[in-house]
Amino acid sequence: MVSFESDYINGAHPEIIKRLTETNLEPLSGYGMDPYCESAKEKIRLAVGLEDADVEFLVGGTQTNAVIISTMLTGYEGVIAATTGHVSLHEAGAIEYTGHKVLELPQVNGKLVPEELRRFLKRFWSDGNHDHMTFPGMVYLSHPTEYGTLYTKQELTEISDICHEYQIPLFLDGARLGYGLMSRDIDLTLRDIAGLCDVFYIGGTKVGALCGEAVVFTKDNKPKQFVTCIKQRGALLAKGRLLGIQFDTLFTDDLYFRISRHAIDMAEKLKEIIRSHGLSLLLDSPTNQQFVILENEQLKKLQQKVAFSFWESYDDTHTVVRLATSWSTTEEDLRALDEALSC
Amino acid sequence: MVSFESDYINGAHPEIIKRLTETNLEPLSGYGMDPYCESAKEKIRLAVGLEDADVEFLVGGTQTNAVIISTMLTGYEGVIAATTGHVSLHEAGAIEYTGHKVLELPQVNGKLVPEELRRFLKRFWSDGNHDHMTFPGMVYLSHPTEYGTLYTKQELTEISDICHEYQIPLFLDGARLGYGLMSRDIDLTLRDIAGLCDVFYIGGTKVGALCGEAVVFTKDNKPKQFVTCIKQRGALLAKGRLLGIQFDTLFTDDLYFRISRHAIDMAEKLKEIIRSHGLSLLLDSPTNQQFVILENEQLKKLQQKVAFSFWESYDDTHTVVRLATSWSTTEEDLRALDEALSC
Amino acid sequence: MVSFESDYINGAHPEIIKRLTETNLEPLSGYGMDPYCESAKEKIRLAVGLEDADVEFLVGGTQTNAVIISTMLTGYEGVIAATTGHVSLHEAGAIEYTGHKVLELPQVNGKLVPEELRRFLKRFWSDGNHDHMTFPGMVYLSHPTEYGTLYTKQELTEISDICHEYQIPLFLDGARLGYGLMSRDIDLTLRDIAGLCDVFYIGGTKVGALCGEAVVFTKDNKPKQFVTCIKQRGALLAKGRLLGIQFDTLFTDDLYFRISRHAIDMAEKLKEIIRSHGLSLLLDSPTNQQFVILENEQLKKLQQKVAFSFWESYDDTHTVVRLATSWSTTEEDLRALDEALSC
Amino acid sequence: MVSFESDYINGAHPEIIKRLTETNLEPLSGYGMDPYCESAKEKIRLAVGLEDADVEFLVGGTQTNAVIISTMLTGYEGVIAATTGHVSLHEAGAIEYTGHKVLELPQVNGKLVPEELRRFLKRFWSDGNHDHMTFPGMVYLSHPTEYGTLYTKQELTEISDICHEYQIPLFLDGARLGYGLMSRDIDLTLRDIAGLCDVFYIGGTKVGALCGEAVVFTKDNKPKQFVTCIKQRGALLAKGRLLGIQFDTLFTDDLYFRISRHAIDMAEKLKEIIRSHGLSLLLDSPTNQQFVILENEQLKKLQQKVAFSFWESYDDTHTVVRLATSWSTTEEDLRALDEALSC
Repeated sequence: MVSFESDYINGAHPEIIKRLTETNLEPLSGYGMDPYCESAKEKIRLAVGLEDADVEFLVGGTQTNAVIISTMLTGYEGVIAATTGHVSLHEAGAIEYTGHKVLELPQVNGKLVPEELRRFLKRFWSDGNHDHMTFPGMVYLSHPTEYGTLYTKQELTEISDICHEYQIPLFLDGARLGYGLMSRDIDLTLRDIAGLCDVFYIGGTKVGALCGEAVVFTKDNKPKQFVTCIKQRGALLAKGRLLGIQFDTLFTDDLYFRISRHAIDMAEKLKEIIRSHGLSLLLDSPTNQQFVILENEQLKKLQQKVAFSFWESYDDTHTVVRLATSWSTTEEDLRALDEALSC
Repeated sequence: MVSFESDYINGAHPEIIKRLTETNLEPLSGYGMDPYCESAKEKIRLAVGLEDADVEFLVGGTQTNAVIISTMLTGYEGVIAATTGHVSLHEAGAIEYTGHKVLELPQVNGKLVPEELRRFLKRFWSDGNHDHMTFPGMVYLSHPTEYGTLYTKQELTEISDICHEYQIPLFLDGARLGYGLMSRDIDLTLRDIAGLCDVFYIGGTKVGALCGEAVVFTKDNKPKQFVTCIKQRGALLAKGRLLGIQFDTLFTDDLYFRISRHAIDMAEKLKEIIRSHGLSLLLDSPTNQQFVILENEQLKKLQQKVAFSFWESYDDTHTVVRLATSWSTTEEDLRALDEALSC
Repeated sequence: MVSFESDYINGAHPEIIKRLTETNLEPLSGYGMDPYCESAKEKIRLAVGLEDADVEFLVGGTQTNAVIISTMLTGYEGVIAATTGHVSLHEAGAIEYTGHKVLELPQVNGKLVPEELRRFLKRFWSDGNHDHMTFPGMVYLSHPTEYGTLYTKQELTEISDICHEYQIPLFLDGARLGYGLMSRDIDLTLRDIAGLCDVFYIGGTKVGALCGEAVVFTKDNKPKQFVTCIKQRGALLAKGRLLGIQFDTLFTDDLYFRISRHAIDMAEKLKEIIRSHGLSLLLDSPTNQQFVILENEQLKKLQQKVAFSFWESYDDTHTVVRLATSWSTTEEDLRALDEALSC
Repeated sequence: MVSFESDYINGAHPEIIKRLTETNLEPLSGYGMDPYCESAKEKIRLAVGLEDADVEFLVGGTQTNAVIISTMLTGYEGVIAATTGHVSLHEAGAIEYTGHKVLELPQVNGKLVPEELRRFLKRFWSDGNHDHMTFPGMVYLSHPTEYGTLYTKQELTEISDICHEYQIPLFLDGARLGYGLMSRDIDLTLRDIAGLCDVFYIGGTKVGALCGEAVVFTKDNKPKQFVTCIKQRGALLAKGRLLGIQFDTLFTDDLYFRISRHAIDMAEKLKEIIRSHGLSLLLDSPTNQQFVILENEQLKKLQQKVAFSFWESYDDTHTVVRLATSWSTTEEDLRALDEALSC
């Protein structure tokens, strides 16, 4: 059965498997103190255009969000996020588990709206009771969002300006960053993001790695004793090489960008196929995740032949499902989808 | 200057001070192991009509909310509350500090809407991704609400039914319960509440005590080793007598109800005065808190003569302020308000 | 039955009850924003000899320890304490509940030993694996200790020097501070303590108040947004006046010191009585808590007539019990003890 | 330079790399819902001799300890461990970060002593103040211990009996379990361990995997909603296949046991080499970690040619270092060590 279930249905990009195999017998120090981690960090610094950035590797997305938010916030602060943000909805309360509130703001197509953000912050500071409230201490956004949408350069600039006006860091969750950077709608470059955000991460798990996220602190603002904090949260990988080698590979010869571009090409074709069958997309996603509205009977039939993900109920007779492309999606996969929809 | 700033501007009801004085030199065991605590618990069991209820005393409202919620939830559960609920907004993130998410639902006049609650729970359980989400493990509501409003018997019954259908406890924050019970709109009795809720508390701090809240577990559902849990949260009072004597006094000769009734009488007169001066109330509150919309210039003038609380901005030129009555409000206070509004 | 069960068996010193009564009907702002809190803070600043000290009031001892430790430590730090320290043993894990480890050191008569402390810190910093360990971020000690003993000026100076050498704050739990200051062995004055510690508290609950501890930050080092942090931990008292009036009274006309002195006088006589009956004290406590070794049969007999506390098993046939004096202990109480021991 | 720095200096056993490569392009569901995880669980159930055991995979050791302890303890409970236990000393306070105290007991050669454990539990329950203390809710031990030592069958049986007498679960950290099972001193089999413990894990990271620990719940006692709890702690791997495939490989054709045996063979030879050079071992470790006492000058010389780990200071002129063997240690490595020591 052809699968568009997610962008993490396969192992790693073959180039990564090759490098893991080649380096397998080299004895290396643990906990990220190896030359592959160093090399990967250097390549990422170059790619983001910040030679002094601090780069650190973590294993997965929820872990990364929890580690960054809990180490960068002060005890009495919370993090602002869209109601549909991953930290708000789909991390089983991982942020609250660290003792911090997620301050949820309304969203439009999965995105925070700069004006809403400004209004919220203004209202907080002018509220005579704010000493009894959770202080907004950071803004979290995902790019691409959980709905595959992208912030424009103007939107991210506005949000960044608001954050800096209120002196709180801006954190961008880039679990699928590659797909945002290679989108045909691209307006925001990696260097723009590095310039506008205080901290962000470059997702590996969903862009060709077995696991791994590369966190970039852009302003000499890495939390003190970060390795101890990571260990304390059970997130320190003994064989740090596993992360270093993967990111070193992804940032060699633009592999990260090339495989992201491929996924976008596949997604664009997938959209055409969907539309050619008279189906509706929930919204216009310019990245690798596509949200299709299916009549419930249609859904049952389709899932005999194609794997995809439940997203949300649309109405009593329709459901939204997600189809994701990735580095491993082939033209053949698309043909199989086309055929399945033709039956 | 006359003050309607809150319902905790004075010390304790004089009868409480008298009893504290009379019992002051009696040597008693600490941590709530004294006969006054026992007696107060027995009187409360009688008042709520549940002879087997477990009654426990804590010092303040936020503390009580945090202790109950964190001891009754399982680790992966959160508590459902209205966006304007005290636990959502005005406890500085005390619930999240214990590791649990507050799952915020929209409100109407400060109240949870039964249908919204049902929809939320239904959606959660039918969501294919719910294993990655915070489980709804309890419903929190305040009665009276933060806006002085009250649930009807029908509303509370519906919410209670929904909770039991989904097998989660219903927790009622009664920080101002007396004012709800003595409201002229009263529809819900103390026994109704005890029958419909799994746990609730009878507020002392805002109803005549120096401090203290009496928690009632209605269904043999007091968390195991509750005293240890209280200690662990820094909430165990060494001189537990301070709470026992106060509640014993409040529940002797209906003092709790009589002083609440007085506050309601004063609030009804206050509403008349407000209206007689052509001012608007934000909503129709049947309890002791009244929310008045003032033009900003008017506000500045009035605060020279009357103390009240900032509530929220209404629009660019108007502000909502809160005026609260209590056991200590006098006819003279009301006259002073009337005069101040006449200038 | 005469009681030496603890130093919190009575209500408050009568002068406090009098002041609570006199001020009861004054309308005052909540949360410690009242003139009595201000006045009490000013008197405490004078008493400790630091005109710029920040003084804050909390309700109880465990609460105070948890609030101070969790707000002054950084996330990856723990607090050093003696194995017998209150935070190590008798707070139901309240410090760990805030996410911080108590780093326990051996004790002598309830006291930390300066050399052990230095050795521990030195070892930590020279350990090549210390990035994987809890960082020592504060030293906690109690004075008097849980065994009634006192640090000498030299000991506290050494510990303070070590803390400052390692740049970590020294925190002194003074839940029974009055009894230490008025001990006949006194070597350390209140001003010495204020000079040597970074933060300490002056206990009220166990020295004549209904409840309340006065925290003194000596070095312009009060945690940011401290009131929000207190609220977040459920520890903010709505009627802050209850704490302000009590400490204002305790620090008027040296009441705090006079009642502490009385308790010491009573304790010295109690020791004589104990010894005159051929009983042994576990150690030589110069403060208000005395630890008596009783043969188990003797214990059973004595507890028919005298209330005291279980402390710990001594051996298979003996038990250590605690007898405490306080402001309320009378000569008559001592006579009753003497008689009970004579039977 | 030859390295004995740790048992995680290499990538994975080549057979694992081979299987990862072979399965790389198969589309599989995420979060452990793939057939390799199922197959690995089944093989582990067979190996431990419990067909109904629940098996779950996590990424690393500290993470596993924190997840198990925090999900199996009740809020007011702590975990008993040796002072040298990994959870006590070398996890940066990860257990306390989850809100639970580690109750540290003295150790002998890294092991808990059954009598000390019994004494501690008995004392706790007979202490009249235990409601104010952290409840002992679980026993943690590591096997092999942090010092490479092993519990005998009699010791583990005694500890298990004590746990069950006090109705608390016994948790065995098997981060290096393979080396314990293949030790020449072996007395405890895998089936013994499965029978005596309530939960334990079979370490992968230090026994040939890139990462991964396999947790075995032996008594139908897996915490409810375990996957949600794992997600909440940031520990859920999206590509669960990475863990499933590795453990499936390790438990095919006894690979786990064969590579552990090899490491033991190498360790026994390493001990001979150490002794042949007149050096002392800190203690007699029957597993793959060896602790050698080096004169400090000797240490400096040796580290020019051999990589090893700092363990602890021995005295002013000597240091204890650790040399570890693993599946990848070769006869050539041992010769290089021998030569380096000969210089």
